[in-house]
Amino acid sequence: MTDTVKYLLDEADIPKQWYNIAADLPEPPTPPLHPGTGQALSPSELEPLFSRGVIEQEISTERYIDIPEPVRDIYRQWRPSPLFRARRLEQALDTPARIYYKYEGGSPAGSHKPNTAIAQAFYAREDGVKRLATETGAGQWGSSLALAGSMFGLEIDVYMVRVSFDQKPYRRAFMESFGANCFPSPSDRTNAGRTVLAETPDSRGSLGIAISEAVECAMERDDTKYALGSVLNHVLLHQTVVGLEALRQFELADDYPDTIIACTGGGSNFGGIVFPFLGHQLRGGEAVDIVAVEPANCPTLTRGKYAYDFGDTAHLTPLVKMHTLGSNFVPPGFHAGGLRYHGMAPLVSQCTDLGYVTASAYDQKACFEAGLEFARAEGILPAPEANHAVVAAMEAARACKVSGESRAILFNLCGHGHFDMPAYMDYSAGRLHDQQYNEEDMAMALAGLPSVAG
Amino acid sequence: MTDTVKYLLDEADIPKQWYNIAADLPEPPTPPLHPGTGQALSPSELEPLFSRGVIEQEISTERYIDIPEPVRDIYRQWRPSPLFRARRLEQALDTPARIYYKYEGGSPAGSHKPNTAIAQAFYAREDGVKRLATETGAGQWGSSLALAGSMFGLEIDVYMVRVSFDQKPYRRAFMESFGANCFPSPSDRTNAGRTVLAETPDSRGSLGIAISEAVECAMERDDTKYALGSVLNHVLLHQTVVGLEALRQFELADDYPDTIIACTGGGSNFGGIVFPFLGHQLRGGEAVDIVAVEPANCPTLTRGKYAYDFGDTAHLTPLVKMHTLGSNFVPPGFHAGGLRYHGMAPLVSQCTDLGYVTASAYDQKACFEAGLEFARAEGILPAPEANHAVVAAMEAARACKVSGESRAILFNLCGHGHFDMPAYMDYSAGRLHDQQYNEEDMAMALAGLPSVAG
Repeated sequence: MTDTVKYLLDEADIPKQWYNIAADLPEPPTPPLHPGTGQALSPSELEPLFSRGVIEQEISTERYIDIPEPVRDIYRQWRPSPLFRARRLEQALDTPARIYYKYEGGSPAGSHKPNTAIAQAFYAREDGVKRLATETGAGQWGSSLALAGSMFGLEIDVYMVRVSFDQKPYRRAFMESFGANCFPSPSDRTNAGRTVLAETPDSRGSLGIAISEAVECAMERDDTKYALGSVLNHVLLHQTVVGLEALRQFELADDYPDTIIACTGGGSNFGGIVFPFLGHQLRGGEAVDIVAVEPANCPTLTRGKYAYDFGDTAHLTPLVKMHTLGSNFVPPGFHAGGLRYHGMAPLVSQCTDLGYVTASAYDQKACFEAGLEFARAEGILPAPEANHAVVAAMEAARACKVSGESRAILFNLCGHGHFDMPAYMDYSAGRLHDQQYNEEDMAMALAGLPSVAG
Repeated sequence: MTDTVKYLLDEADIPKQWYNIAADLPEPPTPPLHPGTGQALSPSELEPLFSRGVIEQEISTERYIDIPEPVRDIYRQWRPSPLFRARRLEQALDTPARIYYKYEGGSPAGSHKPNTAIAQAFYAREDGVKRLATETGAGQWGSSLALAGSMFGLEIDVYMVRVSFDQKPYRRAFMESFGANCFPSPSDRTNAGRTVLAETPDSRGSLGIAISEAVECAMERDDTKYALGSVLNHVLLHQTVVGLEALRQFELADDYPDTIIACTGGGSNFGGIVFPFLGHQLRGGEAVDIVAVEPANCPTLTRGKYAYDFGDTAHLTPLVKMHTLGSNFVPPGFHAGGLRYHGMAPLVSQCTDLGYVTASAYDQKACFEAGLEFARAEGILPAPEANHAVVAAMEAARACKVSGESRAILFNLCGHGHFDMPAYMDYSAGRLHDQQYNEEDMAMALAGLPSVAG
């Protein structure tokens, strides 16, 4: 038995500004393009979709952007979040590595997602918006926006990927508890949904399809905007509160990470924990090894192309430059629904392309095995998404045992697994398999990327 | 929109001692009796059941008892827990009341239960115990002991009330994730269980039956002790970290509660938040109105007798003096499984008998309605047990609106509802009814109380 080591911050240490990596990159972020003209979109062209506050942030290259007080005020409910030194896990692994994890599961939705949901709901209300439409995979994001909507008096419509809608009725009930409307996607409420259903009546859905439905719903009504839980610059910006706090906490620990490991689906968890440290490096500070971990069944960074593509299946979104498996690629159903997206955040993609990031992919069984080992050592059961970071961190710690190096390894435990017990039950009962995506489908989807000079 | 007000403490402010109300009561606590002889039990007679560390605490009248460092060390993972001023709820209710809630849902099991589970597992390990057997209703307690067992290398056997075992498979999976064994109760593993099954093959179980099974399991094996999640003096003692922190936090708030409201099943949540304040009053400090809230379907304090009774159905436990509905009373199934117990902690019963506590009872529909209103205002979805405190606190706040008084109301939000979504789904779908207990059954159970001079 070794000590629990927790690095807390005072409320006053909740960041007052978000950090924008665009300010420190050696080249400007790639702009979103109009799919018809191939020209960079102007801010006003984004207005049918997004509220003005987030559009400003989407294109900003300012290094720091003030967090509005009403947002910071709600952050206070669960922020600053703790940084733990995983001493029991180190002992269990008998490793000289120093393993640290930031824990975002203490938020009222159980994950890091409220960091941006609260901000997006705030800017929507400031802009006179009455309703936000969004998609959700595993339900973490939908839950968070439902919560944020109830705080700011907004109506929330959530299009939930069919496979998750069926697997996770409790996530849906959680959203409804906060007054949100939750629809399985593909639905018959939108052209995008009806088109998919016509071709594939039993479609399990995907984030790409659900995004199309939410975008369509936002474009149809003046009082409705669209909210995205990941991928976009402003979403990653809001999540940097995680990494900014961690930077301060490492000062308290009198240590600094050698390696940062982050699971990545759309990229918001990754950007949140990594960018403040990467920015520090780009400004001449300590260098850090950065590892992005994705599911082997949806290997965007490790198998995708870095190219302009649509963010959704029905091609309603602007084109963004990102690592993508093709917007028509529908990944097999697996339990880390929050990582089941064909694309990757443009900023994460760019950082990977610039060589700052090493990407790796893990099968889900290995992830669950690591998650249970982590739980039994540290007492917290991680969400399946977070298990991707856990498995990679444990592997890095085991490598330290072999090499004898004492490296400091940081990862973000982005959510708890209290809503994910069916997945753990499947794993424990041996019902969980490492289903392989279809190579032909992926090749076809990649071949179908839009032809735009990127 | 009003400010979030959170009163945090520093890690150094995690209490170093538990508070023992027995030191400040005007009369000694009532002793447990041997059911055969009717004589007060000696500490050594409790040793087949409990580890020595907790037996000492069970009979102690010392005011403060040191928290062992390894226990305090694990507390650090989620303690000190925050005290919130519920400003948004106050605004929604348009009340002059000042509503405060302590939030215990941030623990790794999602409730206050780890406060005693960690301590009990520690003392068991100190005593050379290999295995702890216990019961669980809703699963909060079993989850917490499972977690504590994994921290201290103990095997954990959990007898889970059948109706909860069926309703809450995810709670079971959570326990199993931490390596615990979980059996539906009544089971065929014990004489107690087999006896019930012979009479009622489709028995839904009760805490009283599950306790019998766990006690029997502990008595059969030398390396196994019994652990109880509530009722006993040492359990309430461990929970006083909640109220002790709250006392400090009210200093930070420069305020003091006029009313403390606590839900109560076995009494551990109640004792945890109330006793430090009540002790302060008994030592001549500020007086406070204390309200115990129980489910109308299991109205121990409001309808029970204050008498010596068995803690379990098979009559394997010592006799304890408490408010009881009779050990043979099986309450109807309802969703706050943690409150579904025929008895009440002897210390809570004694405080009620001494006139320090007002008891009230609420039907579950009113509780869920209040819980959803709370969630939409404060952003946290409470466990069904906690909703009993929420509804009473909201009623007290509404009374302030009528009277114009600005009273300070404190309650403990003892757990989050992330595992209780089926209950919320039932409520929202109109499938949840206020089933009434059977008056004749209760009268018979009360008539069957053991005849012991009390």
